[in-house]
Amino acid sequence: MLYDSIIVGAGPAGVSVAINLKILNKSFIWLAGSEVSGKAASAELVRNYPGLPDVTGKQLVWAFKNHAEQMGLEPVSGQVTAIYDLSGRFAVTAGTETYEGKTVILCTGVHASKPIAGEEQFLGRGVSYCATCDGFLYKGKNIAVLSTDKSFEHEVEYLCSLAGHVLYMPMYKNCTFSAPNCEVLVKMPKEIAGGLKVQKLVFDGGEREVDGVFILRSSVAPSVLLRGLATDGGHIVADRQCRTNIPGVFAAGDCTGRPYQYAKAVGEGNVAAHAAVDYLAENK
Amino acid sequence: MLYDSIIVGAGPAGVSVAINLKILNKSFIWLAGSEVSGKAASAELVRNYPGLPDVTGKQLVWAFKNHAEQMGLEPVSGQVTAIYDLSGRFAVTAGTETYEGKTVILCTGVHASKPIAGEEQFLGRGVSYCATCDGFLYKGKNIAVLSTDKSFEHEVEYLCSLAGHVLYMPMYKNCTFSAPNCEVLVKMPKEIAGGLKVQKLVFDGGEREVDGVFILRSSVAPSVLLRGLATDGGHIVADRQCRTNIPGVFAAGDCTGRPYQYAKAVGEGNVAAHAAVDYLAENK
Repeated sequence: MLYDSIIVGAGPAGVSVAINLKILNKSFIWLAGSEVSGKAASAELVRNYPGLPDVTGKQLVWAFKNHAEQMGLEPVSGQVTAIYDLSGRFAVTAGTETYEGKTVILCTGVHASKPIAGEEQFLGRGVSYCATCDGFLYKGKNIAVLSTDKSFEHEVEYLCSLAGHVLYMPMYKNCTFSAPNCEVLVKMPKEIAGGLKVQKLVFDGGEREVDGVFILRSSVAPSVLLRGLATDGGHIVADRQCRTNIPGVFAAGDCTGRPYQYAKAVGEGNVAAHAAVDYLAENK
Repeated sequence: MLYDSIIVGAGPAGVSVAINLKILNKSFIWLAGSEVSGKAASAELVRNYPGLPDVTGKQLVWAFKNHAEQMGLEPVSGQVTAIYDLSGRFAVTAGTETYEGKTVILCTGVHASKPIAGEEQFLGRGVSYCATCDGFLYKGKNIAVLSTDKSFEHEVEYLCSLAGHVLYMPMYKNCTFSAPNCEVLVKMPKEIAGGLKVQKLVFDGGEREVDGVFILRSSVAPSVLLRGLATDGGHIVADRQCRTNIPGVFAAGDCTGRPYQYAKAVGEGNVAAHAAVDYLAENK
């Protein structure tokens, strides 16, 4: 199925896009790496979302989620790892699924960490973001796994069940993960190097030969996600209609820059949805 | 008193600005031509303001107003008729009062009607937007009064009590106003003409010699309000930080262009408040 739109992300901006596309009667799929929550729910007190004074982040996110559910909308779980521009339509890969849409609306939030040197260069040639998709390629092999969050440990476990040896570098505190064929090393990764394919991982104070590197993060840098997408200081460059430099691709919320605010995110979600509908009308 | 900011307008964008400036601990005055309501409250059903599913426009505006009131915020009643750029600070005239601020945030909504030919040219030289301010200048004289809304009839009455003769042109339906020295004429005004000062009003099918023309509208075109402000098709030109072409002047909500939506308006109000605070920090 070719959707009118593919929404990537289920924070406040993503919710706003979904609600508007539904009202505007467009077909779409709504992809979320994590639940409608994450960072957005962490605020202790939100005083500046007009109409809902003095709510906690949790309450506000609940209100957003509830609003979407009342309209029959629920995001499909799937960490998006790549978007391909097929001129006139887009293919979006999430987990082992690929979806096609005439437009893509990126609501991916702030991407906290910088890519590691060599990460983009070796993507698809030894670097992978998805254990489920690519794990089988490394049966019995020697791999490194980098992860930014404890919640990815079940994926590390899955990789350990396949690979010969796993070098696991947790980039979070209090890692308690262990497996017989796994070495846990608390170091900062510096570079992924090799020739045609990945050959080694360089880290603070050393390096190790590996056949592949899995990078497990809650979000992928937008410029890595979609080749050619213009970014500035880690933010997606968007105009006042939330259009990016790629026709048919829109961006809303924290991923477009500061201020990182609920009201800005839902406002941009609204604008991006309307801009996508305008684009669809012009490109029938 | 020199305020950090002057907010013009009390629709959804204005409420969002006020809430944020209050939280950000800035001094400001909040001016509203009409109540927190007007056009914003007219929607029968609003389904796309995230967090408040299926509310009426009235309920949503009530929620905004209530939010502001809970923070001790209430707009000061006063139709803004002129803003002067005094390099480094701004003077804002509302009714008979003038306020000074380091920044101005325009949340003036959509300005429906085009200026009449000659209107800008003769402003302050026979053209006035304010009966209370300028009425006394026309004691015993011959004036024309144009009005877009029935709610201005009490101002027309006031002008009739001062002027010698009033030609009243209501630009709304079902005008029932009358006064002994007032001629009600239902015609479309076409041009205000004269030499150094206003001399006549031209309308469809005729013209009349007058000493002055009062134009009573719920909003003044932004380019007339503030000389040199860049506009495009009646909308204020603003960048993604809601900055206009004049440093220190910001714009948010419907006045910056489509889509005319609650979520966009509150989002821009949030962004404009943050941009104004950044500007204040850089221009101490």
